[in-house]
Amino acid sequence: MNETTTINPNYVRIFDTTLRDGEQSPGATLTSNEKLEIARGLARLGVDVIEAGFPAASPDDLEGVRRIAKEVGNTPPNELGLIQQPPMICGLARASKKDIDAAWEAVRHAARPCIHTFLATSPIHMKYKLRMDPEDVVEQVREMVAYAKSYCDNVEFSPEDAGRSDPEFLYLVLGEAIKAGANTVNIPDTVGYTTPDEFGKLIAGIVANTPGIEKVVLSVHCHDDLGLATANALAGIQAGARQAEVTINGIGERAGNTSLEEIVMTLHTRRAFFGLETGVDTTQISRISRMVSNFTGIPVQPNKAIVGANAFAHEAGIHQDGMLKNHMTYEIMSPETVGLHRSRLVMGKHSGRHALKVHLAEMGYELTKDELDRTFERYKELADKKKVVTDADLEALVEDQFYQTGELISLEGLQIVCGTMGMPTATVRLKSPDGQLYEHAAIGTGPVHATYRAIDGIIDLPNTLVEFSVNAITEAIDALGEVTVRLQTENSEVMARKSPQNGRNYTRTFGGYGADTDILVASAKAYLAALNKLLIFSGGHQPSAATLLLNSKKEV
Amino acid sequence: MNETTTINPNYVRIFDTTLRDGEQSPGATLTSNEKLEIARGLARLGVDVIEAGFPAASPDDLEGVRRIAKEVGNTPPNELGLIQQPPMICGLARASKKDIDAAWEAVRHAARPCIHTFLATSPIHMKYKLRMDPEDVVEQVREMVAYAKSYCDNVEFSPEDAGRSDPEFLYLVLGEAIKAGANTVNIPDTVGYTTPDEFGKLIAGIVANTPGIEKVVLSVHCHDDLGLATANALAGIQAGARQAEVTINGIGERAGNTSLEEIVMTLHTRRAFFGLETGVDTTQISRISRMVSNFTGIPVQPNKAIVGANAFAHEAGIHQDGMLKNHMTYEIMSPETVGLHRSRLVMGKHSGRHALKVHLAEMGYELTKDELDRTFERYKELADKKKVVTDADLEALVEDQFYQTGELISLEGLQIVCGTMGMPTATVRLKSPDGQLYEHAAIGTGPVHATYRAIDGIIDLPNTLVEFSVNAITEAIDALGEVTVRLQTENSEVMARKSPQNGRNYTRTFGGYGADTDILVASAKAYLAALNKLLIFSGGHQPSAATLLLNSKKEV
Repeated sequence: MNETTTINPNYVRIFDTTLRDGEQSPGATLTSNEKLEIARGLARLGVDVIEAGFPAASPDDLEGVRRIAKEVGNTPPNELGLIQQPPMICGLARASKKDIDAAWEAVRHAARPCIHTFLATSPIHMKYKLRMDPEDVVEQVREMVAYAKSYCDNVEFSPEDAGRSDPEFLYLVLGEAIKAGANTVNIPDTVGYTTPDEFGKLIAGIVANTPGIEKVVLSVHCHDDLGLATANALAGIQAGARQAEVTINGIGERAGNTSLEEIVMTLHTRRAFFGLETGVDTTQISRISRMVSNFTGIPVQPNKAIVGANAFAHEAGIHQDGMLKNHMTYEIMSPETVGLHRSRLVMGKHSGRHALKVHLAEMGYELTKDELDRTFERYKELADKKKVVTDADLEALVEDQFYQTGELISLEGLQIVCGTMGMPTATVRLKSPDGQLYEHAAIGTGPVHATYRAIDGIIDLPNTLVEFSVNAITEAIDALGEVTVRLQTENSEVMARKSPQNGRNYTRTFGGYGADTDILVASAKAYLAALNKLLIFSGGHQPSAATLLLNSKKEV
Repeated sequence: MNETTTINPNYVRIFDTTLRDGEQSPGATLTSNEKLEIARGLARLGVDVIEAGFPAASPDDLEGVRRIAKEVGNTPPNELGLIQQPPMICGLARASKKDIDAAWEAVRHAARPCIHTFLATSPIHMKYKLRMDPEDVVEQVREMVAYAKSYCDNVEFSPEDAGRSDPEFLYLVLGEAIKAGANTVNIPDTVGYTTPDEFGKLIAGIVANTPGIEKVVLSVHCHDDLGLATANALAGIQAGARQAEVTINGIGERAGNTSLEEIVMTLHTRRAFFGLETGVDTTQISRISRMVSNFTGIPVQPNKAIVGANAFAHEAGIHQDGMLKNHMTYEIMSPETVGLHRSRLVMGKHSGRHALKVHLAEMGYELTKDELDRTFERYKELADKKKVVTDADLEALVEDQFYQTGELISLEGLQIVCGTMGMPTATVRLKSPDGQLYEHAAIGTGPVHATYRAIDGIIDLPNTLVEFSVNAITEAIDALGEVTVRLQTENSEVMARKSPQNGRNYTRTFGGYGADTDILVASAKAYLAALNKLLIFSGGHQPSAATLLLNSKKEV
């Protein structure tokens, strides 16, 4: 089905590229499972299009997009009738046959597949990056858009670095793309330096001068280098664009992309001013924001619009002025609008398995029987230690459960001695997939360093730590500590990833997550989770491959 | 000296309110020392006005502003002639004599003192909060602006909630304020929901219709609830405003304020478009951003414009395309422009005290002899443990030094045993100001919990932990761990703080910071630092007051 113009002229399509442009954030490598989980969340959120990845980047990336196309691309996300059809699933491709083949291979099983191809049109890119004459650029756009169209009804074309392109040339290229079959044309501010006035004028110029523009959807894609991403996208929408390309939490390279939550809530809360609407279920915003933040390990600052921890908070302790009968005085968006629940539902030591299941379902988590069993076990251990198990604790348990599934090497025991005395020592006991136990003790500059050295003494997987972070604990200090670790490796066996913008390979970053009341146990679990992920990407799907890495001299 | 109009019509004054509006961020209580340090940094940065606080909030707040007025308000910040005069020092006051008296008392010793008073002008605020008729609001504005002017040449007036005020009424009130002597009028978007178009029109309307507006500086003050703070301020500036009220890192209540760095760098990098300039030394941006983030404990997300960790980074490992001869392809702001140094200067085990002093001076730190001695000691300890001491390590040592200065109770020893075995145990040894040692051991749900219970067994200062956070480590895992802790207390002896917007008292939050290669030692130090701060605010300036809190049964 050809989906050319939006039926409602006041409807703005939300094109989410968290899994593609967002994943290009430094340090944000996601596993195939994590991407699928996020895609499910995006469908629940009600985005119109999910750009699920860049299939030509690697076989793994292609497979990731394919899984999403098959499942999320065919499941209507909401039986209540709120959202009627599965989201469109889009794959990015440079303007080459090889990339477009890969993109089609990945998205073809979706009910509503889409190929998004791009080519740079600014003088500086054409000269220094593409090394192509403008006429050749036009020809390649014609050819490749037509090639994509031969596969797929829905084709989007982006003139990369449109912001610095010659406007007349831009109209020409866009007109040719439309003739060749593109039904969405997307205008990116690749460098991120445009202002709302300029970008609005650029879009208005395109609307006024591009042949065939009235037949297609005009889209905008902005970056936040000067803090103007949302304002620029809005200016483009006001000038006639009817699709916004966005990411959750505004993640992306450098200062990131336009935030989905900012665009959606601006249009939502100011609909009297803009007269526009989206298809997003705003009550899902809070949850998907946390999921993306946890999986990517990219934190959201407290003073981030809409989804920051303080977005709805006043200084703790400010007594609401008794005279203020009207709460509209300071706070127009209600926390409930974005899915934040003011009252914390808490469970205690005596809540049973069924109550846990029901409560998790209310929070939006549907676990398999095995997952529920394991979560319930850990929940009981936690409830024994803590007076009250909060929703935040439960979320951490579920996330941790998600990360431990499919683990190859597990933590069986950890013992730490440390402090100001000066010889931090860690003893670890690990279990390989075939059940063999290994122990090792090591000294470090601190307990975490000692732990990692002890683990390294058993698992021989050279790596570089690029980040170690602990989620801020905002409840009592006996709350679960959550640790995220990110590693890189020089191991050439590990599949490198190709960057769409410059075609070069770059090193993946592997993140691991762990949650425990003991911050050192959490640190150990996070490191192991990252190593396990590295193992999987190294081709270590076979348990025996993992065993080979274990230093057999340490056998217990 | 009356400083009415800016001499250069293309100059935009930067009015920094990090220490006032920024400090209203949940959790951001700063000590008097921290505020002074930040004020020094703001002067080095080259802001035109420092709003140093709300003196009527409490005697402590008044004293904090007074210290800044006396020192920073009289020191020309840059001998190189770049910045010729000390910044204006401003105190906030509600429109009452008592508040204005306090503000004058605080700022009077500055070379360029200023009083900033405000009163709400929107129907909803006048009706529900002030419970005043519009005529009475006008009269109070007249009276109070004149009263402030009787003290001080420089008076700023803000119509609170201007965004929802009736424009005609706004012109009237502003006209009266100007007649009564205000030489700056500031237009806030208090609720944070306006769009650039609307706010630009509001400012344009004020410029066109307010009697006397041409004689004063028109200022804008925006909030980021929809992610439009920078764009709204820019729209106001384009419509004729020549002062922007901003905070470092955009901190402030809820989603925060317009970021100083975003406004300054937008005007700077796009000066060909805007034709405007500020007096800010952009190379100081990076450093003040880190200082504010460390002192307030409010982290900056990686994808924050200008000052986020990834603002200048591409995915680690992307090989720069060899064909890209021109680096302008993707990155226009250079890291050096904002003071980020690409190459890390590292010092090793054999670098001497003088080299350390020189290196710290290059980084912008000038320590007293005692501070340098202590920092050098810790530096040597660290260099013994680590191969390479980086600039980040040095910064953490200096910050830690800053926090430990003036400590009442210090950490003399810490011993931890923990892990999966299940009985995390901490033993602490503390020293009181009079040299007495105390020891206690405790069990917890994890090593940090055990440590805090052990400390609580000695120091009797009931408190609630509202946040425990660890700075992400982005170097090797043997780097210094930095921990920030935030506490609150119900102790009524602790001076409460008054909110300027609603006059109610609210509980302070006390932050403590600690840095050590051992994350648990860092956690202990951070907790102690917060408790010491709480002691000071509880009136515990006398060492004996601190001793009384120690449980004498634990004496060694």
